[in-house]
Amino acid sequence: MIHATTNWRLETEGAVRRLQAASAGFLRETPLWKLPAGAFGLEIPQAEIWLKLEHLQVSGSFKARGMMNRLLANEIPASGVVVASGGNAGIATAAAARALGVRCQVFLPGLSPEAKRARLRALGAEVVVVGEVYADALAACLARQKETGALLTHAYDQPEVVAGAGTLGHEIETQGGLPDAVLVSVGGGGLVAGLAGWFERRARVVALEPERAPTLFRAREAGEPVDVEVGGIAADSLGARRIGAIAWELTQQHVQSALLLSDDAIRAAQQWLWKEMKLAVEPAAALPLAALQTGAYRPREGEKVCLIVCGANVDPATLA
Amino acid sequence: MIHATTNWRLETEGAVRRLQAASAGFLRETPLWKLPAGAFGLEIPQAEIWLKLEHLQVSGSFKARGMMNRLLANEIPASGVVVASGGNAGIATAAAARALGVRCQVFLPGLSPEAKRARLRALGAEVVVVGEVYADALAACLARQKETGALLTHAYDQPEVVAGAGTLGHEIETQGGLPDAVLVSVGGGGLVAGLAGWFERRARVVALEPERAPTLFRAREAGEPVDVEVGGIAADSLGARRIGAIAWELTQQHVQSALLLSDDAIRAAQQWLWKEMKLAVEPAAALPLAALQTGAYRPREGEKVCLIVCGANVDPATLA
Repeated sequence: MIHATTNWRLETEGAVRRLQAASAGFLRETPLWKLPAGAFGLEIPQAEIWLKLEHLQVSGSFKARGMMNRLLANEIPASGVVVASGGNAGIATAAAARALGVRCQVFLPGLSPEAKRARLRALGAEVVVVGEVYADALAACLARQKETGALLTHAYDQPEVVAGAGTLGHEIETQGGLPDAVLVSVGGGGLVAGLAGWFERRARVVALEPERAPTLFRAREAGEPVDVEVGGIAADSLGARRIGAIAWELTQQHVQSALLLSDDAIRAAQQWLWKEMKLAVEPAAALPLAALQTGAYRPREGEKVCLIVCGANVDPATLA
Repeated sequence: MIHATTNWRLETEGAVRRLQAASAGFLRETPLWKLPAGAFGLEIPQAEIWLKLEHLQVSGSFKARGMMNRLLANEIPASGVVVASGGNAGIATAAAARALGVRCQVFLPGLSPEAKRARLRALGAEVVVVGEVYADALAACLARQKETGALLTHAYDQPEVVAGAGTLGHEIETQGGLPDAVLVSVGGGGLVAGLAGWFERRARVVALEPERAPTLFRAREAGEPVDVEVGGIAADSLGARRIGAIAWELTQQHVQSALLLSDDAIRAAQQWLWKEMKLAVEPAAALPLAALQTGAYRPREGEKVCLIVCGANVDPATLA
């Protein structure tokens, strides 16, 4: 319980101030779009659906908040920043490092696609290809960190990363007031932790996972974080094998519901968001709408439900 | 000068009230997203770029405003509504007709792609295929209108359509106050007319056209509307052959600048909007950003520049 004494609201407010002061113009205040429930075919009198369009954040996902906060909160040695991720966390780290003018090395396994490497290089990162699978790249990244003292960013399980993600909750509240419920996807849990730490129980934070990547759901069954097999449509961004320690603590304190959604429901919601709303998002960003469309989450009359649209790192050709 | 005595601000306010009262939940209040100029790589102290995300409007473009206003402002006979358009105007008419539960016939030429016909049918419209080219479909549409008394919607040159488009200006001002400049694409001119009629000269409305579809530019050279050859990247939505009569009048009164942009610049801006902002838009929606990126329009220090992102009827595969 290393973080049990942390005041996450203060940490989040600190991150808000740090990000505003030290990285002006890097992060974007993304739109909060309030629509009547009827716009989604839901017949719930007076209910409002809020879409937090965080997929429009710089780097294409909320991860930029946490990564920039991690970089700003620490002294960055000449050896720079290291990360093992070809996904949103790697992209966000590279973008933050470029904005600060510091060196960034991204460790990827041999099986990672060339398109991801090219994107990271375009962001100014050095791509280090090691071994075959993700575990090889991670081991090399950790070894490099020990050897050089570089600053390591973790995709979800570092306090600065969680507090940075929490600034999304702070921004929602500043823009639109307090919602009744916040629906959010969970992989390693950095975002749900940040939101739970910010909202505490002032808003109902609802955790959503693909059936095929149930890190939080299985941890709750087991009573502690456990490794799970992950796969399916959203594995690219929600494919952590185990819920993070910080996320475990904060969701145990503040999150009542952890719901599972099928790949079919996630895919249908992703397609609906493109076809009906012209929002091009990755599968992970579609879980909140899928929870409404399937009835897994049922808003009450007059409820204000905020759906976190968390990322847009999608090949647009897959939306057609 | 049939509209010279029209008070367009009153017409627009009337459209706002009509649309709010009679079609609640059909139109969306789309996000107005304010960003520092630096987010676009522009180094202009204190300048703000406002993105009006109207491509997120129902039916995927601003056209829904004008078409719904046209339908609400008139009695609709049992023969319903007719329109000759396979593009945004046809889609918006079909969507508005479906929302009101009235019959809608869309006239298309034999050369129109099956994907467009399928989309219109999915919106509940009857698709009538006539002749080979657009002029054949238009002639058949007009003949049907005369024969049955159906209500005709025109893509840009009807007062209710212009006032409906003007509600976009009203919404921007309600959401964000008065910008200094509004940058907008021009095809037949319904949108620029609506904005000019609303803002008059309280904000500088800047008209933008592709070099290969210069209806307003050529009209200004000739001193009157003239037919032009149209083609190029945005012809699908900006490919009217001649500026509308209402748009001609209103732009002569209120619009000082009509600028041309190359297809290359438009394409580059469209790709930038996807790559850097994760906004999936059609080429016509990228002209305002292209005007900034090429320097065709140069904001001054402290200027608030509103870019109208007008439509998202794009095959996402073309963005990759």
